[in-house]
Amino acid sequence: MDDLTHFDDQGAARMVDVGDKPSTRRGALAEGRIRMRPATLERIRQGGAGKGDVLGVARIAGIMGAKRTADLIPLCHPLALSRVEIAFTPDAENSAVTCSARVETTAPTGVEMEALCAVQVALLTIYDMCKASDRGMTIEQVRLVEKHGGRSGHWQRPVEA
Amino acid sequence: MDDLTHFDDQGAARMVDVGDKPSTRRGALAEGRIRMRPATLERIRQGGAGKGDVLGVARIAGIMGAKRTADLIPLCHPLALSRVEIAFTPDAENSAVTCSARVETTAPTGVEMEALCAVQVALLTIYDMCKASDRGMTIEQVRLVEKHGGRSGHWQRPVEA
Amino acid sequence: MDDLTHFDDQGAARMVDVGDKPSTRRGALAEGRIRMRPATLERIRQGGAGKGDVLGVARIAGIMGAKRTADLIPLCHPLALSRVEIAFTPDAENSAVTCSARVETTAPTGVEMEALCAVQVALLTIYDMCKASDRGMTIEQVRLVEKHGGRSGHWQRPVEA
Amino acid sequence: MDDLTHFDDQGAARMVDVGDKPSTRRGALAEGRIRMRPATLERIRQGGAGKGDVLGVARIAGIMGAKRTADLIPLCHPLALSRVEIAFTPDAENSAVTCSARVETTAPTGVEMEALCAVQVALLTIYDMCKASDRGMTIEQVRLVEKHGGRSGHWQRPVEA
Amino acid sequence: MDDLTHFDDQGAARMVDVGDKPSTRRGALAEGRIRMRPATLERIRQGGAGKGDVLGVARIAGIMGAKRTADLIPLCHPLALSRVEIAFTPDAENSAVTCSARVETTAPTGVEMEALCAVQVALLTIYDMCKASDRGMTIEQVRLVEKHGGRSGHWQRPVEA
Amino acid sequence: MDDLTHFDDQGAARMVDVGDKPSTRRGALAEGRIRMRPATLERIRQGGAGKGDVLGVARIAGIMGAKRTADLIPLCHPLALSRVEIAFTPDAENSAVTCSARVETTAPTGVEMEALCAVQVALLTIYDMCKASDRGMTIEQVRLVEKHGGRSGHWQRPVEA
Repeated sequence: MDDLTHFDDQGAARMVDVGDKPSTRRGALAEGRIRMRPATLERIRQGGAGKGDVLGVARIAGIMGAKRTADLIPLCHPLALSRVEIAFTPDAENSAVTCSARVETTAPTGVEMEALCAVQVALLTIYDMCKASDRGMTIEQVRLVEKHGGRSGHWQRPVEA
Repeated sequence: MDDLTHFDDQGAARMVDVGDKPSTRRGALAEGRIRMRPATLERIRQGGAGKGDVLGVARIAGIMGAKRTADLIPLCHPLALSRVEIAFTPDAENSAVTCSARVETTAPTGVEMEALCAVQVALLTIYDMCKASDRGMTIEQVRLVEKHGGRSGHWQRPVEA
Repeated sequence: MDDLTHFDDQGAARMVDVGDKPSTRRGALAEGRIRMRPATLERIRQGGAGKGDVLGVARIAGIMGAKRTADLIPLCHPLALSRVEIAFTPDAENSAVTCSARVETTAPTGVEMEALCAVQVALLTIYDMCKASDRGMTIEQVRLVEKHGGRSGHWQRPVEA
Repeated sequence: MDDLTHFDDQGAARMVDVGDKPSTRRGALAEGRIRMRPATLERIRQGGAGKGDVLGVARIAGIMGAKRTADLIPLCHPLALSRVEIAFTPDAENSAVTCSARVETTAPTGVEMEALCAVQVALLTIYDMCKASDRGMTIEQVRLVEKHGGRSGHWQRPVEA
Repeated sequence: MDDLTHFDDQGAARMVDVGDKPSTRRGALAEGRIRMRPATLERIRQGGAGKGDVLGVARIAGIMGAKRTADLIPLCHPLALSRVEIAFTPDAENSAVTCSARVETTAPTGVEMEALCAVQVALLTIYDMCKASDRGMTIEQVRLVEKHGGRSGHWQRPVEA
Repeated sequence: MDDLTHFDDQGAARMVDVGDKPSTRRGALAEGRIRMRPATLERIRQGGAGKGDVLGVARIAGIMGAKRTADLIPLCHPLALSRVEIAFTPDAENSAVTCSARVETTAPTGVEMEALCAVQVALLTIYDMCKASDRGMTIEQVRLVEKHGGRSGHWQRPVEA
């Protein structure tokens, strides 16, 4: 591992120069999950029909979070996103809700951070709405699943042993 | 688990009324970690001496992230924070960096979300700065460790078996 | 009408000095509506059960909009809101959705602007989500209904003739 | 009215994918008005010459509001605006000030929301500056007047009967 | 000069703990100026009467800038400002416009940064509006003039020799 | 000096229409300095090795400040920046730290304001971190050094006599 591109020769942080990179179609898929008590999961699953739609609120927060990425992450380039979609999957086996975020853009740099940021904000919002009764919820396995476009091309997370 | 306070009787989301709660001293401690390749961890540990201080940048991002919590989490109350401190600990055994955030306020509601938000933004910033050489890093075990103050008083995360 | 407090003697705009005003409990209720085609109203009313919850999204936008008021309105004081609630009422007679926002704080100045801002952002969000099929929707009757607290005390909108 | 594009098949909100739409020149014109007491209107009309320029402040707020649209409206795409102009017209007959906002961009999606958002923030700012003496002001007739560009082409508000 | 309070014993940046400091009335006055060509100054002085009010726009930007201080300066505490006033003085002798900003709060920490931030944003806005014809304008002498309140009490800038 | 482009014929402020300008590569270099006591300068120079890296924090603040320019300066166009770099140079002779910021974009308008904004926020951050022991620090000589690209082409600050 030779170098971190976010620093110059003297070790000073910088927003990397992407001025010579072409503006191309790029995308990223990130995911993560929040573990909770079974009763909390059950409560979330019942939502939506006049009982409080936790995932609906978290989805909006995640989409808006993707748009705030360059405000939050110091060296991220501001980007015009062309697509943000967030999906939740209840996971009874692990007593968790899994969140995935797909983000796309046409830009000289990728949207991995935007996808991860959407996942993080969505999961934090679930925590916020359920914390009064389940303070111990844990966010885990937040990671990039896939990216496409750009010089480094397609990347897919290797299957873990 | 009877109810989620962030919804009214019809299931409509709301910012909970804290107007009757006294403004008292409150604090929260949250933590999380990001797992990475050993070479990435080694690179981060070498930082600081003119070689690029990844954790220094992430710390600033985390502190600023705590201040943006009410912008990101839909139903969070805006609060005037009185203290934000972020610490990183390299964890060679798990090939990870652990981040903890301590936040305090004097307010009618707590700062759990601010502490968690600081951790998330700090860890995302580490991901951003190292992703060019280690795209597979994973954020995990993001959780509340402790809170104090307010009607529910002191809470400490139970030790896991 | 002698003077506008937001200007000094030379006509220069200013954020009014509220340093001598006590911090007291204050509240405001604002409302407004968006008129639309009957088919659009019908579509919105069907939402929620797996078909797209327009009002759920607009409610979140309105609550977050209340928190952004001091960012948007130049001379507004930044405030720590203690409550934000937004309600929608379908109005078949006028082929409209009515939105009301109740905001409260304990502060030296009132929250009329926060309540109005919440209504405006909520109604704009409804417009955004339905505009592809009903571009002619109109926002109207956005106004303060009631306020309480502060030196000027209780105010209620007079019934119109 | 078959469908709302801001929701997927399961009714989940999303930022619509515009990745396949070409970046073209687009524009929108929106308008709205705020009704007030005749004395308030007279006071606003006298402004500007060392007496407090209400409309000057509101114009700046509206321009800045257009730039915040994607921060406020959950499913709006962030856009690089190429033009924002705001005009006010006193309307003595209705004892109102009319505001119109023209916004343009070169992008894969339109700027109707940006124009409407500019009008709303400008009118709210007028309310804020005059509310101490005229709390009953009402914002009304906020609507799109015209749009051009994009796949749906030119649209003009039909004349009302 | 023993220590910088914004760092802990290990040199890690932090938002200083002000939880034990009482919330008291505090104020700050900052100033700065922008030097320009005489013709630019003349043009600015003519503004206001239907010719473009550069200082009116800059004043609004400065007031709004004061409110964004905690967003911009990493270790600043978020504060509820109770007063922001900005004044401009043409200075023909130095071919400059001087800006001063007075900010007040009731809080456990001071508003020096808010006053300086207001001055900086106001002067930058003047630069922006005049840069097409006078790119060489220089911002200078931005400094704190006075502060009051808090443990360190009253401070006044010493007269320079 | 005939006209200021940020105003229309009636003197109303506007975001200038750049819709007909081609999107080209543009850059700007700005600089400024903050004067301080020799002891403060010495303290800053010692930073970085576990003693508190003032310039590291200020650099991050400056980079993030560049991204906030269109939020702060009313009539600035929002832009997607392709590069932001900030450098600090201790200047013992003047007992000052000089900051320079280089910003680039591919856009229909330039990035002079972004470069100046980065310098201002970086210098303010230095002030914030050292103000407890040196309240009298002064920011000065903030100015554009060079710009390239766009219709007006290359501009370099003339050497001062």
